[in-house]
Amino acid sequence: MGRVTVRRPVLRVTADGSVRRPDTLAAEEPLEVRVNGRPLSVTMRTPGHDVELAHGFLLTEGVIHDREQLATARYCDSPGPDGRNTYNVLDVLLAPGVQPPDASVTRNFYTTSSCGVCGKAALDSVRLSTRHSPAADPVTVSADTLVGVPARLRAAQRVFDTTGGLHAAGLFRATGEVLVVREDVGRHNAVDKVLGWALLERRVPLTGCVLMVSGRASFELVQKAAMAGVPVLAAVSAPSSLAVDLAAEQGMTLVGFLRGPSMNVYTGAERIVTKAITG
Amino acid sequence: MGRVTVRRPVLRVTADGSVRRPDTLAAEEPLEVRVNGRPLSVTMRTPGHDVELAHGFLLTEGVIHDREQLATARYCDSPGPDGRNTYNVLDVLLAPGVQPPDASVTRNFYTTSSCGVCGKAALDSVRLSTRHSPAADPVTVSADTLVGVPARLRAAQRVFDTTGGLHAAGLFRATGEVLVVREDVGRHNAVDKVLGWALLERRVPLTGCVLMVSGRASFELVQKAAMAGVPVLAAVSAPSSLAVDLAAEQGMTLVGFLRGPSMNVYTGAERIVTKAITG
Repeated sequence: MGRVTVRRPVLRVTADGSVRRPDTLAAEEPLEVRVNGRPLSVTMRTPGHDVELAHGFLLTEGVIHDREQLATARYCDSPGPDGRNTYNVLDVLLAPGVQPPDASVTRNFYTTSSCGVCGKAALDSVRLSTRHSPAADPVTVSADTLVGVPARLRAAQRVFDTTGGLHAAGLFRATGEVLVVREDVGRHNAVDKVLGWALLERRVPLTGCVLMVSGRASFELVQKAAMAGVPVLAAVSAPSSLAVDLAAEQGMTLVGFLRGPSMNVYTGAERIVTKAITG
Repeated sequence: MGRVTVRRPVLRVTADGSVRRPDTLAAEEPLEVRVNGRPLSVTMRTPGHDVELAHGFLLTEGVIHDREQLATARYCDSPGPDGRNTYNVLDVLLAPGVQPPDASVTRNFYTTSSCGVCGKAALDSVRLSTRHSPAADPVTVSADTLVGVPARLRAAQRVFDTTGGLHAAGLFRATGEVLVVREDVGRHNAVDKVLGWALLERRVPLTGCVLMVSGRASFELVQKAAMAGVPVLAAVSAPSSLAVDLAAEQGMTLVGFLRGPSMNVYTGAERIVTKAITG
């Protein structure tokens, strides 16, 4: 997979002057996913783990919920300008009886709300769709363990250090053990690759697991985690208001600003074991 | 606009223990944009400047290119659970003769490439669509001026300091003077709000301007900048490979890692005036 990074010349400008040198960039290319022969979506992604990406995307959009529902996934022949296959079109065939998604409602499946679109309607849509609500998951995680997770995520990131341009998502056991880490130029893609890996490994619902993301926690990331039954979602940066609302609705533990020795627990604090409660 | 931020309780966990306290979050709510009565897109955005957002979105999707092509934009009555208008549905009416977009190709207008989707096809699609290629813009910007822009962007960010959860985009003159800054939970939305402001101010094409974004520079951000004729795009973080390729194709200057006293100039270095060329 030589396409995860790309070399380009750059003019490096500092207070002392400027110099030409090569630079390593994160690769970004479009991936078209077709389902049963019909184009479903195009996402800008870092090439690699595309089959996981397709599984994760279809899982978190509510199209499939176990790996047997996807019969085959293979690259279509899509030659680039040089005549070689770009590996940028993936053909997915669903198992017999599995309802293909309506292409007009992909990427935001709550676009079906024909009027009165609001936070509540979006939340309702998700609550109806997930088969794996994490509400009943009794797992607990010690705050000390969580504090160590960002360093493990960073250690597993192979491309970030060379390009500085990739988001990461990682799945961890409640003991802090890393299960899988994926990187991508897109935050959603990194999460879809991780959740697609989990589906292929028959680990969904992800009972007892922590999903850690390198950036912020948006509504859509909480939604994806909920669709895979993740009980604890942790982010290096801030969550949005709707991310917190949805996590509360789903009974998910949402941790933000997980940096250094501290963190903010927005929802599901009963799963986080701290040394002392002083407040 | 009390909805730009939201207060929620949080359990703050540190090495010394934990304490309950209120926390301020960036608001995230869905905005449905309808064009000529038909739903076009739903985007998760921070409420505020929604009319600018709609203008910027339609500009960068190639639907409109001046403000007269959009006849009216007003909130539809979309009551939430409490019976009050959510202000989350915006009705846009195009001027007579303006072709409404095909809803099936929004958000990624290169999804029309029916096969052989690859970087080249995506680039071709954009090259055909923009009316405002920045290639001929003779503006130059001193490296010293650019180095000062991130601090000005940060100073103009009102919400970031309280929530840590917002992306920012700002438009600057080549002298470093700030024209407008917008914040949003979504990177694309912040840019669409800035470019929509510019369209409403009749400043498109944005000849002589610098667009600065707080995060990374993706293909889609370069694409949006190209659709508005922006000659210089600067980002705090890394660009992707396809962002660099598209900027080169468009004759746009792309600056990344603009932090402290230094930066990387990936394309269009002739517009950046440096003290000395030592390499």
